[in-house]
This record gives sequence, C-alpha cells and structure tokens, in this order.
Amino acid sequence: MSYKAPLKDMLFDIKHLAGIDQIAQIPGFEDAGFDTAQAVLEECAKFSEGVLSPLNWEGDKNPSSFQSGVVTTTPGFKEAFKQYVEGGWQGLQHPADFGGQGLPKTIGAACGEMANSANMSFALCPMLTDGAIEALLTAGSEALNAVYLEKMISGQWTGTMNLTEPQAGSDLAAVRSRAEPQADGSYKVFGTKIFITYGEHDMAENIVHLVLARASGAPEGVKGISLFVVPKFLVNADGTLGERNDVHCVSIEHKLGIKASPTAVLQFGDHGGAAGYLVGEENRGLEYMFIMMNSARYAVGVQGIAIAERAYQKAVGFAKDRVQSRPVDGSIKASAPIIHHPDVRRMLMTMRAYTEGCRAMASVAAAAYDATHHHPDAEVRKQSLAFYEFMVPLVKGYSTEMSQEVTSLGVQVHGGMGFIEETGAAQYFRDARILTIYEGTTAIQANDLIGRKTARDGGQIAKGIAAQIEATENELLAQGSADALAVAKRLKAARQAFVQVVEFVAANTRTSPNAVFAGSVPYLMLAGNVVAGWQLARSLLVAQEQLAQGVDAAFMQAKITTARFYADHLLTKAPGMRDSIVEGAGSVNALALDAF
Amino acid sequence: MSYKAPLKDMLFDIKHLAGIDQIAQIPGFEDAGFDTAQAVLEECAKFSEGVLSPLNWEGDKNPSSFQSGVVTTTPGFKEAFKQYVEGGWQGLQHPADFGGQGLPKTIGAACGEMANSANMSFALCPMLTDGAIEALLTAGSEALNAVYLEKMISGQWTGTMNLTEPQAGSDLAAVRSRAEPQADGSYKVFGTKIFITYGEHDMAENIVHLVLARASGAPEGVKGISLFVVPKFLVNADGTLGERNDVHCVSIEHKLGIKASPTAVLQFGDHGGAAGYLVGEENRGLEYMFIMMNSARYAVGVQGIAIAERAYQKAVGFAKDRVQSRPVDGSIKASAPIIHHPDVRRMLMTMRAYTEGCRAMASVAAAAYDATHHHPDAEVRKQSLAFYEFMVPLVKGYSTEMSQEVTSLGVQVHGGMGFIEETGAAQYFRDARILTIYEGTTAIQANDLIGRKTARDGGQIAKGIAAQIEATENELLAQGSADALAVAKRLKAARQAFVQVVEFVAANTRTSPNAVFAGSVPYLMLAGNVVAGWQLARSLLVAQEQLAQGVDAAFMQAKITTARFYADHLLTKAPGMRDSIVEGAGSVNALALDAF
Repeated sequence: MSYKAPLKDMLFDIKHLAGIDQIAQIPGFEDAGFDTAQAVLEECAKFSEGVLSPLNWEGDKNPSSFQSGVVTTTPGFKEAFKQYVEGGWQGLQHPADFGGQGLPKTIGAACGEMANSANMSFALCPMLTDGAIEALLTAGSEALNAVYLEKMISGQWTGTMNLTEPQAGSDLAAVRSRAEPQADGSYKVFGTKIFITYGEHDMAENIVHLVLARASGAPEGVKGISLFVVPKFLVNADGTLGERNDVHCVSIEHKLGIKASPTAVLQFGDHGGAAGYLVGEENRGLEYMFIMMNSARYAVGVQGIAIAERAYQKAVGFAKDRVQSRPVDGSIKASAPIIHHPDVRRMLMTMRAYTEGCRAMASVAAAAYDATHHHPDAEVRKQSLAFYEFMVPLVKGYSTEMSQEVTSLGVQVHGGMGFIEETGAAQYFRDARILTIYEGTTAIQANDLIGRKTARDGGQIAKGIAAQIEATENELLAQGSADALAVAKRLKAARQAFVQVVEFVAANTRTSPNAVFAGSVPYLMLAGNVVAGWQLARSLLVAQEQLAQGVDAAFMQAKITTARFYADHLLTKAPGMRDSIVEGAGSVNALALDAF
Repeated sequence: MSYKAPLKDMLFDIKHLAGIDQIAQIPGFEDAGFDTAQAVLEECAKFSEGVLSPLNWEGDKNPSSFQSGVVTTTPGFKEAFKQYVEGGWQGLQHPADFGGQGLPKTIGAACGEMANSANMSFALCPMLTDGAIEALLTAGSEALNAVYLEKMISGQWTGTMNLTEPQAGSDLAAVRSRAEPQADGSYKVFGTKIFITYGEHDMAENIVHLVLARASGAPEGVKGISLFVVPKFLVNADGTLGERNDVHCVSIEHKLGIKASPTAVLQFGDHGGAAGYLVGEENRGLEYMFIMMNSARYAVGVQGIAIAERAYQKAVGFAKDRVQSRPVDGSIKASAPIIHHPDVRRMLMTMRAYTEGCRAMASVAAAAYDATHHHPDAEVRKQSLAFYEFMVPLVKGYSTEMSQEVTSLGVQVHGGMGFIEETGAAQYFRDARILTIYEGTTAIQANDLIGRKTARDGGQIAKGIAAQIEATENELLAQGSADALAVAKRLKAARQAFVQVVEFVAANTRTSPNAVFAGSVPYLMLAGNVVAGWQLARSLLVAQEQLAQGVDAAFMQAKITTARFYADHLLTKAPGMRDSIVEGAGSVNALALDAF
C-alpha cells in the first residue's frame, strides 16, 4: 500500500488554523507564506512517497543488523539518506547562518509528518539529529558549534541523544556516566548508554553523540548532570575526520517495531576514555536537555499523527476493496465492499477524526512556537511560549496514545488479514507502540502537564485556553447550523470537564499529590481530547465559511462531518473522565502492596 | 516470568458468583461441588504452571514451521500435548459416555483460562478440538460419533473448524467449497480453506477437520451450507488409521502473534476429492456451526481474560522490582519500585479490574450454561439459556477488546523494556491482537447482540438483566458502606445508560438499521462494561459479608477496592457511550465514499 501525503488537510490547517500568513509577518519568516508552505510540502510529499515509503516494509523484513561493532542498515536506507541530505531536508527548520533553510516549525512539522508516515524507522535518524542540533544551538559554544553544526544541518553527520542507562530511564537523577576534565579543556567520558536510536549506523560519515554524564565532583541527582558532545570520529582542526573515538556499539535491540531503526547499547571509555566536549556549562545538562526534549517530544507527537495517517490510508484502501456481506440497510442487493458496513465506517471515522484532530492541534502548537522566537511583540512571544509549552505534553502524549488506538483499529478493519504480517497493517501497530514510551512515557508527559504546566501557575494558562475554547463555542452558536450546534454542545461539556479537572489539579497538587497524580494521564488525555476537538470545531467554522463561498465543497463537507464525528464520539468521553479523575483517586492508591 | 494461576479469585467467583453448589444440585453434576472445583483447579494450575507456561516464550521464538506439507511444532509442544492427553484434560467438560469427565463449564472455563494464560498458542489446539467435539455431539449421527468422539475426547485425535475461504471471512454465505455425494453415502470434498488453526501439526496421530461446504445442488447463500467431517487419515472399520485423505496443508501464515500455533491453508480434493462424512442433515451446516460457535466464542472470551491475567502478573512483577524515581508524596526519601508511583498503580489497577470483572462475568455465564442442559425446572433452563446467549457476545467481544488495552498497558508499565522482545510483555500484546478478530470479529459479535439477542425480543432479556442489576444496586444501598454507595452510584448511571441504548436498539433496528449498527460495537462495549461492573459489585457485597465474618481479610479488602476502582474508572465511561450511540449515528455514516 503506497502512501499519499494528505496535502490538502495539512495546508488547510497551516492556512486556516495555524495562520501561516501571520507567521510570515514575523521577522525572519518573511518568505514563509502560504505559497512557500505549499511548494515545500509538495516537494516533501514527492520525496516521502517516492523514496521513503517504498522502503518501509523492507525495513521491517530486513532490520538493521549488528556484527562486531558494525551496524548495517536495511538495504536502500543509505541511498535514501543520501538523497535526503542532497535535498537539504535536514536543514529545513535550522538557521540559515549554518546552511539551513530557516523555515517555520509550522511547515517543518508537516514535512516531519510525511517522512514519518512514509517510513518511521528512517525518519527517526533525522529526528534525532534535529534534537542534537537544537541542543547545540541552545547551549553550544561558538567554537563547538563551528565544528559541528554546519555538518549536522547539512545532514553529512547525524546526531543522537544519550540519556538512558540501565538504572536510569525516566529517572535521570540516577545517571552514572562520568566525565573527567582534561588539561586541554576536553573531557574523558565513561559509561554505558542504552536505547540509543541510530547510536551506530552506516548512513553518515560521522555520528555526533550528545551525552548526559557527571563531571568529576558534580553533585548527586539531576543538579550534577552535564551535557557533552562525543563524536564517533574525532574532528581535526581543519574539519576533516580524525581517529576513531572510544565509543562503541556493543549490541542492538531486538524490538517489537521500528525494526529498521537500530537501537544501540553504547559503551563509552572502555579503552581509556571517550573524548568529550562540554556543551554550555557544567551541571546544566538537564536544563539544556529539557529545551531540546520539548522539541523532540513535539516531534514524537507528530510521529503519532504520521503513523495514524498511514494506518488510516491503508484501512480505507482495504475497506473499499474487500467485498464481504450485504449492507444492513438493504441499499445494495449483493455483497459489497466493507466500507458500506456501519461499523467499518465507525472505525474509519474514528481513525480519521483522531488523526485530523491531532494534526490540527500540532499545527496550531507549531504556529505558537514560531511566534515565540522573533515576534516583535514581547507579550505575544510570552503568551505563545506559554501556550506552546502547555501543548507539548498534549501533542506528545495524546497524539501517541491515540495512535495506539488508531493503528489497532487499522488491524481490526483488515479482519484476519490484519494479523498476517505480509498485509502490513500489523507493522504500523507494532511501530506505533514505542511512541507512548520514548522521549518520556505518557506518564512523564502528564507529570510535566501537572507540575510545570498547570499547578505552577494555579491553572492560569489552562484556563486561558478554556476561555478561548468558550469563544469558539460562541462562534459555533452564532453560526447556528445543526452541525455547529451539536459540536458546541459537546465542546462545552468537554471544556467544563477540563476546567473542573484543572481546578482540582491546581487546588490539590501540593496537599494531595497522590490524588492528583492518580489522574495524571487521564488529565492529559482529557486535555488533549478537548484541545484536538476544539481545533476541529474551529475547522468546522472555517469549512462552513469556505463552503458558503463555494470553495472545494467536497473537502469542506468532509471536514464538517469529521468535526461532528469527533464531537459526537470522542468529546463525549470527557465528562466521564472528569468523574474518574476528580472522584476516583482513592481506589487508584488503596490496594495494599501485597495484594497485587 | 512464570505464571501463577489466580486460584483464589477463580474459586471466589465459582463459589460466590456462579454458585457451584447450586450447579451440583443439577442432575449429572452431582459430584461437581466446590471441593471438586478446588481439586480440579489446583491440578490444572500445576500442569499449566509447570508444563505449559515454560514453553510459551519458546513458542514465540521458535514458531511452528512448514516444509513440504509437514508442520513441525515448537520443540516441547509434542511432549506437552502427550501429557495433556494423559492427564485427561481434553475430556474435562465432555460426556462420560465417550470417556469424558462431564464436569460443568463453570469449572472447565477456569481450567481453560489457566491453559491459555500459560500458553495461548498451545491451548488453541484443545480449544478447537472442543469445538469440533461439540459440533459432533450436537448433530453427528451415532455411527459417525462412534468413530470419532472417543478418540477426540481422549485427545488422541485433534479437531479443527474449517469455515473461512479467501472470499468468505465474516460472510459465510460466500463459501464455495463443495461436496459431491458418493454411492456409499460419503462425499468427496473440494475447496480451499484458510486461517485453519492447527490445520496441520505433529502433536496427534489424526486430525478431524469439520468443514463447511455446499453439497451438489444446494441453494445459494447460507441456506446451502452443510457440515462435513474430513479426517486427515481415513479410519478403518476397526478404528485403526487407514490411508491419507486428500486434504493437504499448502502453507502456514507468518503472523503477528500466537506464532507457535500453526495457521494453515488447507487444500481439499486436489487429488480426486477428500473423503467427507455429512454431519447431521444437508444444508443445516450453519445452524450446527452456530451452536458450536457459541462455545468457541465463549472460549475466545476466556482467552482474552487469560492473556490479560498473564500480562497483569508480569507487569506487577516488573513494577515491584524496577526502581525508578521517588514517590510524589515524599513517603519514601529515595528512588522506589515504580509500583509506588500513582500512574503505575492506575495502570495495574485498570488491568486488574478489567481482568477480574471479565472473569466474574464469564464465570456467571458459564453457570447459566450449566443450568441450560439438565436443570429439572424447564423455566430455569429457558431463562438460563436466554441469559447465556446474551452473555456470549459480551464475554467474547468485551473480554477480548479489554485484553487489547490490558496487554498494551502491560507493555507500557515496562517502559522501554516493554518494547524489547526478550522482555516478554510484547508477546502478550501481539498474541492478544487476534482475539477480537477470530471466531467472529467484535463487529460480528455486536451484530449478534443487536439482531438475535436484543432486537428480536424487543430488548426483553436485556431489560431483565437491567432489573437484576438494579436489584444489586439496592443491595449496595442497603449495605451502606462508602464503597458500596459509590459503586451503586456508578452502577446506576451505567445501567440507565445501558437501558436507554437497549430501547434505542429495540425501537430502531428495523426502521433505521444504519443508525443502530453505527453504534453496534459501542453498544456491545457498554453492555460488557455494565455486566462486568455489576459482577464486581456483587463481588463487593460478598466480600463485605465475608470480611464481617473475618474470612481472608486481605483478599476481601482487595476485592472491594478492585470493585470500587472498576466503578470509578470504567463504569464512568457508560453515560458518554450512551450519548455517542443514541445521538451520534449520523456522523458515522455521513461521509461521502469519495471523501475517505
């Protein structure tokens, strides 16, 4: 099943929800109006559909393999990566100063979705490189960045993020890797890192590892963690590659999904110490990591949307093709394609509504990000940052959780064929399963949402968003169509449930942390649900306006139906979630440890 | 991770919810009181834990393999099956007349759960044999049964169900396999069957295929389907095995899960015709299949409970062992096992509540089944049958759908380790994925629930169940503890939602089939949710009584907490589901076909 980029839907969001033409008013983004977005997206669609997508199933069948320290990627990946680099795709969102294209995230996110829909295992490599680039842009010294950034932004060298150790997963306080300062200002790094995505591979000439480790004498816990660059090959003064550094891949994992993407165990310093270079200041590693992680978390959320889109397309293709049984309404007097059966419709609509809702949410979040950097109005920058930061755990947590349901429905639509690996639906289901885990599990996102994003300001940002949602409800009421009124009703109930939970969180996080954190993930899911539903409600308003103007009636009508479906079938979950969160904490924590 | 049978919970259900001592009053089950149940379950636990469980991961690593028509099962399976047969396990629920033990389903279901928890791929073989035995018991002639039943009930020969063909999955009307009558009263069978579980293997000396096919001259559609026995080896008059029949395995599938269980493509009659023997009368095959299918569907529901239990146990083990981060309430001043984190608790409690709720539902359904056959009171038989038949789609549909969520949570609890195949959590997640598909997808169960079980009698049986639920609510109110009152509140809201949906279904199935079937699976999920929650509410009442009597305080307290959790976190979904079903059908069916 080939992949077809949903350009129309992406451009609808970029234009009408994210407001690309406003973004193009921001200094630095002058060339990034709608026409640019369209041109870039079309080009990216070509590349994703033509080059990356055909390698996706191949990567599942012939995963990256490991032998004697060397990782060989799936046949075709190396060549595809070369084309990726030649196309300049790695530099899309990075500064022109270092050879990038400096495009807004609003455009970059859509491109990221396409690459991940086409081939998630492949797209992980550039995604991790993006993260490493952001870390250097955030905190790297001019000297360090002069050595690395241009090569990484061109895609010539790739990047990794080395956080996890066997005893330190979600709990980075437990990191034990250490770094000894050397006379020349560099460090020698020692330790074991696990779950390192593209920690070793054969697609680029150098790999730039960003590594969390403790400098000698650093305090315990998260306050003693520093960030280091540890390249696979040392870099000579003239920029050419020097000798092999003391970082080695000792194995790669046998995983449930994203099999083409090598997940490495890296050993640092087994032969005297790996040369490492401090990023920023000592003991501020976690702070840098968090800035970078916000970007990576957003990107993983986009992966959720991407894999959901792919699963949806495949399921639609099958449902239109597979003939089985007569429709229950007697409208066809013979066996019909299964898309004529209401439950298949329900599954496809669920997949579609989730995917479009999360895409809309991610697009709007990206627009806020774009406004945080160079918007001339400081108040707009501040508010945009607050909004974006609130959105990050939702984009990451909600979009990846929904991708579990959507890819599972994708299997279900295929019936027995869905369980057969050659069909391909199972690959999306397996690939998606990592998304709620890496870059911080959903629970870690939810902790962030509760602690830093809700409790800290007493729920003010959350309530500000609720006020915006209420404004949309009023627009729906004013619009007055049956669909608008129905959506308004569900949105209102969901928004009220959200506000009640925000108040519960704000009031109790300090005094009853167990009660609040018992509902942490449900709160995240509720918040994601209401925000995605809100964005589809906004979409409905736009679509009804466009429809009235005679623009693309079929697309606009479908958008209205999808928004209505989201409201009727997904927003309806919100009040029950409120009940569980606000009134149900006791039974979460009540069972005696021995009783489990 | 080894498996430990949840004997205490099973025996609680069997004693207090299913009422085994009442079942032992029924003629034929005189020896099947609580002591028998306990003794049989303990023996089954030993076998499942000691023999079947250790082969489970092995089966995933070394699946059944196919070469030149021969299927070789995972090393160890053949020997384990020999022990299974020697233990007399195949005959547990089958009539003593043919060498079985004639025990009630209430006991048999618990044993089935254990075998499937221990090793679902293995347990499928006896499960399919059970189905074939039931078909013969239902409709086979004395002569036919004399040849096959004893050997199948002993486990010497295994059975299969041959329904699916490439063009006929859910839609059995499309079956094309055909059977030509022969002068001696036998038939020659021709056709291709796919997805045949244990359609070929090396664990038994003969395989008895039950095959749906059309006798020559039979009408089109489901009314022209007959059922045939087609043995792998013909049986001589003296009961010894004769020559090889013309049915051959041409390949087995490469599947997402249950890899040790061979899923065969069988070719019938490529070399002149496979000898087949009619079961019952011509053109009544589907009717026999349905009786058998009710049994198989129930058994698949039990598989859902089984895999959920296994995933739960593994997750609990990991959560007690894995140390990561400090508890949010500051109760421990160092990193603690992750079971101390509220969200991990929430996940484990969700897994536990679903599993116990569905186990209770299945146990009560089994008791009803046991009363259908030999209960002296005809009215009890009739009502028990109606109750059981209503339960079958819920046990099958709801327990298997919940197993998707539970096994996915099992992966999530393990964090990054969950995505690594060697951890084992991913196997349960993959294995479970077939359960909502085979023996009729959840949508097929939901069609059954709507058509035969709800609309046909205008919702009378459903409302009768609702009345019983209301009686439990009143008992909870009378009991008066905080837990009982909280559960009563949620149960009432869920029951009311259920009744409103039943009324919607009863009123509209004929006139607006698309609207009703748009909510078919949500209706099934709502019904399963409320019935499982009801059984846990009954459990709470029993537990509070036992607690008052000083019986096993730790277990009873845990049961109360689990029932409370179910009410607070799962029953709370019911009102929102009502809204979606009753008010949301329009948007399910509204999208233009081209817009997908």
